[in-house]
Amino acid sequence: MDFIMNSAPIIGAGAGILALLFAVVLSKRVTAVQPGNERMVEIMESIHTGAMAFLGRQYKTLAIFVVGMAAVIVACGYFVGGMESGLNPKTAIPFLMGALCSVLAGNIGMRIATKANARTANAAMESGMNKALNVAFSGGAVMGMSVVGLGLLGLGVAITLFPGQPDIVNGFSLGASSVALFGRVGGGIYTKAADVGADLVGKVEAGIPEDDPRNPAVIADNVGDNVGDVAGMGSDLFESYVGSIISAIALGASLSIGANGEGVIVPLLLAAWGIVASIIGTFFVRTGEGKNAQKALDAGTYVSTILSIAGTFVICKYVLPETFLDGRYTNTGVFIASVAGLIAGTLIGKITEYYTSGDYKPVKEIAASCETGTATNVISGIATGMTSTAMPIVVICCGIGAAYYFAGLYGIAIAAVGMLSTTGIVVAVDAYGPISDNAGGIAEMAGLDHSVREITDSLDAVGNTTAAIGKGFAIGSAALTALALFSAYTQAAGVESIDIMNPMVVIGLFIGGMLPFLFSAMTMSAVGRSASHMITEVRRQFREIPGLMEGTAKPDYARCVDISTTAALNEMIMPAVLAVAVPLFVGLVLGAEALGGLLSGALVTGVLLAIMMSNAGGAWDNAKKYIEGGHHGGKGSDAHAAAVNGDTVGDPFKDTSGPSINILIKLMTIISLVFVPLFL
Amino acid sequence: MDFIMNSAPIIGAGAGILALLFAVVLSKRVTAVQPGNERMVEIMESIHTGAMAFLGRQYKTLAIFVVGMAAVIVACGYFVGGMESGLNPKTAIPFLMGALCSVLAGNIGMRIATKANARTANAAMESGMNKALNVAFSGGAVMGMSVVGLGLLGLGVAITLFPGQPDIVNGFSLGASSVALFGRVGGGIYTKAADVGADLVGKVEAGIPEDDPRNPAVIADNVGDNVGDVAGMGSDLFESYVGSIISAIALGASLSIGANGEGVIVPLLLAAWGIVASIIGTFFVRTGEGKNAQKALDAGTYVSTILSIAGTFVICKYVLPETFLDGRYTNTGVFIASVAGLIAGTLIGKITEYYTSGDYKPVKEIAASCETGTATNVISGIATGMTSTAMPIVVICCGIGAAYYFAGLYGIAIAAVGMLSTTGIVVAVDAYGPISDNAGGIAEMAGLDHSVREITDSLDAVGNTTAAIGKGFAIGSAALTALALFSAYTQAAGVESIDIMNPMVVIGLFIGGMLPFLFSAMTMSAVGRSASHMITEVRRQFREIPGLMEGTAKPDYARCVDISTTAALNEMIMPAVLAVAVPLFVGLVLGAEALGGLLSGALVTGVLLAIMMSNAGGAWDNAKKYIEGGHHGGKGSDAHAAAVNGDTVGDPFKDTSGPSINILIKLMTIISLVFVPLFL
Repeated sequence: MDFIMNSAPIIGAGAGILALLFAVVLSKRVTAVQPGNERMVEIMESIHTGAMAFLGRQYKTLAIFVVGMAAVIVACGYFVGGMESGLNPKTAIPFLMGALCSVLAGNIGMRIATKANARTANAAMESGMNKALNVAFSGGAVMGMSVVGLGLLGLGVAITLFPGQPDIVNGFSLGASSVALFGRVGGGIYTKAADVGADLVGKVEAGIPEDDPRNPAVIADNVGDNVGDVAGMGSDLFESYVGSIISAIALGASLSIGANGEGVIVPLLLAAWGIVASIIGTFFVRTGEGKNAQKALDAGTYVSTILSIAGTFVICKYVLPETFLDGRYTNTGVFIASVAGLIAGTLIGKITEYYTSGDYKPVKEIAASCETGTATNVISGIATGMTSTAMPIVVICCGIGAAYYFAGLYGIAIAAVGMLSTTGIVVAVDAYGPISDNAGGIAEMAGLDHSVREITDSLDAVGNTTAAIGKGFAIGSAALTALALFSAYTQAAGVESIDIMNPMVVIGLFIGGMLPFLFSAMTMSAVGRSASHMITEVRRQFREIPGLMEGTAKPDYARCVDISTTAALNEMIMPAVLAVAVPLFVGLVLGAEALGGLLSGALVTGVLLAIMMSNAGGAWDNAKKYIEGGHHGGKGSDAHAAAVNGDTVGDPFKDTSGPSINILIKLMTIISLVFVPLFL
Repeated sequence: MDFIMNSAPIIGAGAGILALLFAVVLSKRVTAVQPGNERMVEIMESIHTGAMAFLGRQYKTLAIFVVGMAAVIVACGYFVGGMESGLNPKTAIPFLMGALCSVLAGNIGMRIATKANARTANAAMESGMNKALNVAFSGGAVMGMSVVGLGLLGLGVAITLFPGQPDIVNGFSLGASSVALFGRVGGGIYTKAADVGADLVGKVEAGIPEDDPRNPAVIADNVGDNVGDVAGMGSDLFESYVGSIISAIALGASLSIGANGEGVIVPLLLAAWGIVASIIGTFFVRTGEGKNAQKALDAGTYVSTILSIAGTFVICKYVLPETFLDGRYTNTGVFIASVAGLIAGTLIGKITEYYTSGDYKPVKEIAASCETGTATNVISGIATGMTSTAMPIVVICCGIGAAYYFAGLYGIAIAAVGMLSTTGIVVAVDAYGPISDNAGGIAEMAGLDHSVREITDSLDAVGNTTAAIGKGFAIGSAALTALALFSAYTQAAGVESIDIMNPMVVIGLFIGGMLPFLFSAMTMSAVGRSASHMITEVRRQFREIPGLMEGTAKPDYARCVDISTTAALNEMIMPAVLAVAVPLFVGLVLGAEALGGLLSGALVTGVLLAIMMSNAGGAWDNAKKYIEGGHHGGKGSDAHAAAVNGDTVGDPFKDTSGPSINILIKLMTIISLVFVPLFL
């Protein structure tokens, strides 16, 4: 027991290293596969180069932001340094570490994902379904393992460097949040600017099919899939992952759970075991020819979940004291809280699937509403998105209620840790999506046999569902993580209460509630402006490059990638300033209680808007696919035209504004937590 | 002084009677005008009969609801009667009075408004602009005077019947809320079902112009304008009006403002003086030929506002003690709080105008986005709606902050009273809109000279702006009223704090925040379903009535009115159940604190969604009008088609779901306030 107590950070770091080693194995497994013929390699290289170019440019802006933020921390640290509970300037160290770990995870994941696409197509051509699934999933799993591996390794090191100083370690979470801001917001703008540009000029104006190599924006579009669903989603869940663990540790310490700090080490142990469970789960992702890839992915997730629950039981039983906090709670209660989080995460995913999959009533009704035109389709989609907020909110409330009932505030943080314990395989399944999507694109562009496209299409179709479920999971985990961080904030602020009967708190609630609306409007408009740059450029290339439409000349792919990148990075300045400046301003001017109101207001409307926008977008997308599947007149019908309009409205909803809100609510909370000494 | 102290309810009732007498004068002024030729009288009678038929049917359902609710109050009253602070069964008496007064106000207002339309058209024909404005505004002012007259008279009587028992008088507000639920939600569904039905089959399918008498839904559509903007808006502001006064009285009593109950009588005096100020203001609404009607309406509003401020100063100075609550606040502070409310109301109206009028940048940008199609128009409109939440929220927060800083919790309720003191003229200006709109329709249907239509069009154009401003004012006043009622609720519940650090409160916040989303989805879908009934019926009449298109046979207007009525009343059952049942359920199961969380969550997201939906809808509407004015290709262009789609999406946003949220947040709060003894 003593051994475990003293070496928990080491165990965490060890599990992190294990995940990274497994990522190396997976990477080798992917790169060992032949990437196919010359044309395929060429396309793959274009996507890979484009993705790396995007990341490179992003790092430059990110570096300015991170260094600036570190300087602010150090400056504030020395400025308020005289006070006992002041902001410790050393917080800048874990901050830089957190940012670096998240950047590294994203870089490794993107590097392999953009190499796995052509190899997936080639595996489909040479060996069939199972091998193709294996390559695509392994590519995704590299991202998953990098996220949890670098997350827990970095956190373990940070805790070892600053033992017993959770306020300093909080910096790690802020670093992760800063990278997530760039990954999700910048990435979200990038991916949709490229997508809209490619679709509007290529498909609509020039009349060439999706993924046609003559389209100058086609590479940017394929890069965008990776930027959004690999790097963006990865950085989002990296943030939630470390945020939930850090808040559980902070609450374990401030509430003094267990006489020997058992409450502090349990989150680390749960996360460490979650990595093992995720690794074991990956081995269950396998399928036969013509079988359903969804089942294979589900099998992996379920195995990981069950293993995680079993391990959680053992850890709670044998590490935690039987009762704590004057006997109010038991170690079984902590186990229940953790399972409540896991179940909530799974349920939210299932509810998301119900509202966004073409197999169920909501999407079918939206498709039917397309028969009376675009307006009814838009209204129907928005109404579905709004309706779809109800069940996830009830699930989240039940999760919070159960966790709190059985283990108090600590239980809420543990529920977040529980939900995120299987992050490794969740990210793997999610990142698998863009890889198969890209594989399909490469098969199309390289003119591979129809049978290959059939396999990649069946892999991609599953990817659409997993993407929607992943978004639901990301929102749910963001909500629980933000709430856990919020609890840590209230403890750190030392306020007695954040009382809604106090009008200052009400003002905070109103302003906080408004921020996700304003933030969403900004990101949505940003997509519009960026896309218009892209449209202009694609039109120019079609006009000025002779032989482009005939296929005798090559378009300038790199320039389109560059335009998306520049636009995305410029457009994210204002939303980023909003997310960073408003909580600091409110905290300094109106105080810690009003800031608490602001955080909870933003949490509530943020979660609601994120669910509404993600689900409406997903539902429109699949209503269009449902019509394309031959319903309501199929492709080319008036209903289809209405459905395409709905899908275009939904694009920034589900891929830019919705997911960006996750970052907003977490980032504002962690900023408040780190800078709380300034507000007292 | 003693005289004022003892007779404040009588003074209030007296001012109410004054307003009603003035309404009689105005009614006579309207009915004295000739309604025009036989055709005009016929159409007017159809609209009038349709409107009265709608009200009649509504009353039957409303009666069931009100009697049921009264029975619940009495039953709960006797059930919890044993306890000291139990729900008093006598609360049912003011409840019934409040419902009756609101119904009466709506009935009188609708009765005159549907008689003023043809008379406005005839006045435009015979005497020109100023007389037409005079008739239309007088018609609207009958509604305005009925609202404030019956509101204050009823309240004065209720207070006289139950002196010193604010918990019983609260029932009056609940009665008003119940009627508002039917007026706003049922009315909102009615008006848009008729509008969409008339537009989609008449204008689009049959290709006949707006307001064409061959369209079977044209009368229902004209009835709908009155149902929405006269009865609906009237019942909404009636609810805010009495709710704000009641909460100020309740807080004045529970906080013991002034040794002799001065805090209790000041709200009544402010409201009474506001009636006088509104009456005087109406005399300033006059214009010359070819002049701008907007300026005339503004003049009336400004005069009332300035008079109201002056009177408020005198009342606060001479009735309130110089300092109160241990010298923490002054009577000047109360005056400032009241003015803060008035200024906030005016500013929110101006901000609404900025975001929804074709004269400013936002609407012009939306119009420009129509050039790239429906999808970009929809995105642009939603982004504008979301952006437009920021400034009103800041204004509301400044209002709350100032009111609280200068006069505490009591100040917040006084701010609401101040904002609503000029309700008489605000409702008059708002109800003027549908009367001029109807006048234009009658001029069109009766084939009057083009010059008449020009006058009515210029009156109607102003009506669009006043409608948007009125909506902004309604939301702002709903927010302040709900907040004031919420303060009264927390006092009545006697909870020490509603602490966001308590996860039960967080659960309340989440559920409350979700309700406006679910409620909006329900009302939006209800419009879709009701409209489809209407569409089927209009198509049937075109198909089955021979000679209809040729103008030789008359359509069955009454049947269309009937279909809208039935659909609206059926469709409002579920949203009504939600609004009534959820707060009761949460209060009973999770307790008074969680219910407090629910109310504030609903308040925050409700206000935000209402602003977003109303402004997006208004902006889309005016973007279409802007294009029809000859920009971006004008009528018949692709941009115009995109704009029409946006306007159709915006219709349920701005006329059904958005305004209905006002009722949701007020109704849930007043239910909680009345039934609070059950939750303790």
